[in-house]
Amino acid sequence: MSLQPSYIKPGLDFNRDTNYIEDRITRDGRDGWPVEPGRYRLVAARACPWANRTTIVRRLLGLEGAISLGLPGPTHDKNSWTFDLDRDGLDPVLGIERLQQAFFARFPDYPRGITVPAIVDVPTGKVVTNNYPQITLDFSTEWTAHHRAGAPDLYPEGLRAEIDEVANLIFHDVNNGVYKCGFAGSQKSYERAYDALFARLDWLEERLAGQRYLVGDTITEADIRLFTTLARFDAVYHGHFKCNRNKLSEMPVLWAYARDLFQTPGFGDTIDFDQIKKHYYVTHVDINPSGIVPKGPDTAAWLAPHSRAELGGRPFGTGTPPDAPLPAERIVN
Amino acid sequence: MSLQPSYIKPGLDFNRDTNYIEDRITRDGRDGWPVEPGRYRLVAARACPWANRTTIVRRLLGLEGAISLGLPGPTHDKNSWTFDLDRDGLDPVLGIERLQQAFFARFPDYPRGITVPAIVDVPTGKVVTNNYPQITLDFSTEWTAHHRAGAPDLYPEGLRAEIDEVANLIFHDVNNGVYKCGFAGSQKSYERAYDALFARLDWLEERLAGQRYLVGDTITEADIRLFTTLARFDAVYHGHFKCNRNKLSEMPVLWAYARDLFQTPGFGDTIDFDQIKKHYYVTHVDINPSGIVPKGPDTAAWLAPHSRAELGGRPFGTGTPPDAPLPAERIVN
Repeated sequence: MSLQPSYIKPGLDFNRDTNYIEDRITRDGRDGWPVEPGRYRLVAARACPWANRTTIVRRLLGLEGAISLGLPGPTHDKNSWTFDLDRDGLDPVLGIERLQQAFFARFPDYPRGITVPAIVDVPTGKVVTNNYPQITLDFSTEWTAHHRAGAPDLYPEGLRAEIDEVANLIFHDVNNGVYKCGFAGSQKSYERAYDALFARLDWLEERLAGQRYLVGDTITEADIRLFTTLARFDAVYHGHFKCNRNKLSEMPVLWAYARDLFQTPGFGDTIDFDQIKKHYYVTHVDINPSGIVPKGPDTAAWLAPHSRAELGGRPFGTGTPPDAPLPAERIVN
Repeated sequence: MSLQPSYIKPGLDFNRDTNYIEDRITRDGRDGWPVEPGRYRLVAARACPWANRTTIVRRLLGLEGAISLGLPGPTHDKNSWTFDLDRDGLDPVLGIERLQQAFFARFPDYPRGITVPAIVDVPTGKVVTNNYPQITLDFSTEWTAHHRAGAPDLYPEGLRAEIDEVANLIFHDVNNGVYKCGFAGSQKSYERAYDALFARLDWLEERLAGQRYLVGDTITEADIRLFTTLARFDAVYHGHFKCNRNKLSEMPVLWAYARDLFQTPGFGDTIDFDQIKKHYYVTHVDINPSGIVPKGPDTAAWLAPHSRAELGGRPFGTGTPPDAPLPAERIVN
C-alpha cells in the first residue's frame, strides 16, 4: 500500500502511516461526494492486500457497473503506482500515467504516500479518498441502491461491534503484523512481531475450528480482511517477510478456511499470484536487492477440497454468489 | 564454504570455485602428510554443509581421538572464518584467531577463499588441505587403523562407482544447486537452478521410496553428502535461497529419510540449527541486508517418528552406532 523509498528503519519497529484522505462517498454527499454510479473510479493494484479488500467487496456486492476499476501494475517506483499494464501506460478512463497525478490534482503538495486503494472522481480527476478501511464499509452501507440482486450483507448491523473487534485484532497482528516482521529494524522488533503474528494465527486456528466464518454464520467484512493476508502468506510473507514458523498450508483449519474463501466467487477470482509475488520481491529492494522472484510455491493447492461446508454456515446469507468477473477484469494466471 | 565479498554476480550463474589445496593425508604419506593420530586438527564450522560432512564422518568412524576438532563461529568476515566462540577468540590448539593464518602459514600469498573444512598440521600450524570431497573419503579409507571398533564402511569398494555417480548428481543439482538458486545473478539463472534442484529432489523421492539408503542397504558417503543439505533445507534454503517449490517437510519420503538419518547417532548430534541460520542470514549481506535471522521453523519435528526401519537396511552394516559426542563437542540447541 505505502510507498517508501526505504522500508526498513534500522533499530526501529515498522510504523505504518495510517493517515489517509478521509473523505467519504455517501448517500447524503456530506463531504461533497455523493453516491453516483459511473462517477468514480476505484484504483486498486492486484498485488496489494489492502486494495484487494476493495476488489473483493466490489465483486461480492456487484458494484462493477457502478464503480469502474483501474489496475496499476504490480511494481511501482518510489513516487507512485503506475498504469504500466494499460495501453500506452495510461489509465483508459483517467488518462493518467501515475496515480500520483490524481493525488496532486486534489492536493498539489500532497506529502504522504501515494497508496492504493484510492477512489478518483472521474470528472475532475481528483482523488476522493484512499482511506481503505472506510472504503469497503461504505461500499456495503452507502452504495446499497446499486448492489446487485442477491448481494450479501457484509457488515450486518447486529454484528458490527464483533466484526470491528475481530478485524482490529487481525489488523495489528496479522494484516499489518506480517509487515512488522518483514520491515523490522532489529532482531528484537522482528521477533516481537513474529510472536504476535503466530499467537494470533493460533487463536484464529482455534476460533475457526468449529465455525465456518469469523463472525456469525455468513461471510463478513472480517473474513475479507483476513483473507487478503492469508492469500499472500505462503507466496510472499513466509519467505520474504520471514513469517516462517510454518506455512499457512501447515495450519489445517486456517488453510481450509482460506481455500474455502478462495473457491468462493468474488475471492479467488481477484487474486493474481504472479502480480503479488512480483510486487513484493521487486519493489522491496532493501529486503531483496537481487529482485529475483521465487518460482514457488505451487498455487494449485488452493483449489483442493476444503470440507468446510460441513460446518454449516451460509456464505451469502439469504443472498447468492456473484456472477463471473467482467471479461476485462479476468485474471489469467 | 567459500568467502566472497559479494555472492551475487549480476547477470551470471553462481560459479563455485572448486579449486582447493589437494594434498592428501595418507597411510604412505606420499604428499608428505602421513596418517598420524594427534597430529592434525580438523577445522569445521558447525554452520557449513561442506564442513558438516567431515564432522559426521569423523563421528561415525570414531576418529575423535585421532583427529581433534576446531570450531569457528557461524559468521565470518570477507577474509576468514574466525575462532570467535573460543576463549579469547583463539583456537585452543592452534592458538590462532583466524583460519586464514593457517593458510598463510602454508602459502603466504594464498589467493583463494579461506574455506572450511580444512585440516591443519598442528606442529607447523600449516593448512594441509581444504579439499573437502577427498577429506571424508580419506577418513574412510586411509585412517582405517584408527577407526573405532564397529565403525561402518562408508565407502565400500564394490559400491564406489555407484556412490560416486549418485553423489555427483546430488552435488550439482542439490548440494551446490541450492547455492545456484540463492546466488543466481538473473531470474533465468535462478529458475534453471530451481528446476534442476526440484527435479533431482523428485528423483530422490522416488529412489528412496523403496530403499532406506541411497546406495546399497547401509549408510554410505552418498547419504552423508545428501543429508547435510537436507538438514539446512527448511531452515535456510527454502526461504533465504528461494528454494520454495515446497519445504523438505512436504516431501514425505525425503523428509522421513532425512529424519531417519538425523536421529541416527553421528548425524543429528552434529547439527546446530542456530549456527546454521545465523551463518547464512548474517553473512550473506547482499541477500539479507538487514541481517535479521528468521525465528522459524520449529525444528522439533526432526525428532518425529520416521518408520523407515520397515524398509529393512542396516544403518551401520555389520558395525555399530557411535557413542555419544565428546562432552566438549556437544551441541546445546
